[in-house]
Amino acid sequence: MRILGVDPGLTRCGLGVIDTLSARRVAMVAVDVVRTPSADSVDLRLGSLAEAFDTWLDVHRPDVVAIERVFARNDVSTIMGTAQVSGLTMGLAARRGIPVAMHTPSEVKASITGSGRADKKQVTNMVTRILGLDAPPKPADAADALAIAICHSWRGALSAQSTPGANKDLTERKGGGRQGSGLTKAQEQWARALRDAK
Amino acid sequence: MRILGVDPGLTRCGLGVIDTLSARRVAMVAVDVVRTPSADSVDLRLGSLAEAFDTWLDVHRPDVVAIERVFARNDVSTIMGTAQVSGLTMGLAARRGIPVAMHTPSEVKASITGSGRADKKQVTNMVTRILGLDAPPKPADAADALAIAICHSWRGALSAQSTPGANKDLTERKGGGRQGSGLTKAQEQWARALRDAK
Repeated sequence: MRILGVDPGLTRCGLGVIDTLSARRVAMVAVDVVRTPSADSVDLRLGSLAEAFDTWLDVHRPDVVAIERVFARNDVSTIMGTAQVSGLTMGLAARRGIPVAMHTPSEVKASITGSGRADKKQVTNMVTRILGLDAPPKPADAADALAIAICHSWRGALSAQSTPGANKDLTERKGGGRQGSGLTKAQEQWARALRDAK
Repeated sequence: MRILGVDPGLTRCGLGVIDTLSARRVAMVAVDVVRTPSADSVDLRLGSLAEAFDTWLDVHRPDVVAIERVFARNDVSTIMGTAQVSGLTMGLAARRGIPVAMHTPSEVKASITGSGRADKKQVTNMVTRILGLDAPPKPADAADALAIAICHSWRGALSAQSTPGANKDLTERKGGGRQGSGLTKAQEQWARALRDAK
């Protein structure tokens, strides 16, 4: 399964693609951080992000897109840009029939490091080791997108192995609508829609 | 000039197209409210909104897209859906090279009714009269999208007529980056980009 992880942001949007080789083995396919100049207007920045994201969907043809879930923070202006980018990438993926999964930052950290409170460096170190890379992925903030993709792979694999409860951090439901099948609510709806279409 | 007004929302997204006939005369071209079922996952809803919005861009070929600006409210879950839809529509329009303008709810109300605090019924009544319709536009919540389009037309026309200050509500700058040219910051950047491309 090929997974495109998205770390949504207006100034920096991380994109990372991995292939799952087996239940716990994953390989890096591509990683980058798309930047848009803060001097440009928001619509221009979203327009160029739309182009970049659609190009990644064309080139890498992921089976699933995993996006970091946005949360309310104190700074509304920050959350707004992140929400706009997440809405854009969700819509672009969904219109192609690609399932979209959301994972919270703490879910991602817990998957990768075992702790939902791990710092950035710890996540980068683990991503580097998990993917068997010689050096941390570049640019420096690219590791997060890969971490989201790895998290999605492992959370799915865990559920598929029917080991709920093995790690509470990994299996607790957090509004993402994850079911016992290891599919998100969105993935289940797509699966149902595809079945109905046949 | 053809203007597509967008009243962004996940459950109901209003779309209204008008043509400007002269500085103050406008005619309705099309109006609808795109609905997505709240039982569906957010990505599916955004995917079908993306399809609907791109179809409107294909069919009506607007010169400008005018979107109601999202503001921080108490309910973060509401603002999140609105921000996601506004990000999606901004990105889809901008990638086609269509300028995007944002207007605040109070700017829209002031343009249409003379008061930034007008209620929904007053806005609907004025939209019906301005467009010379026999009855209020349907569905009932479709008038807002037309109001946003009319607001954009009139604010542009006012600036073009060089009558700043004639109506403070209409001419004050509210972070939308409107310049004396009557163009938003985004429109000016596009105009500059188009000039540079020649």
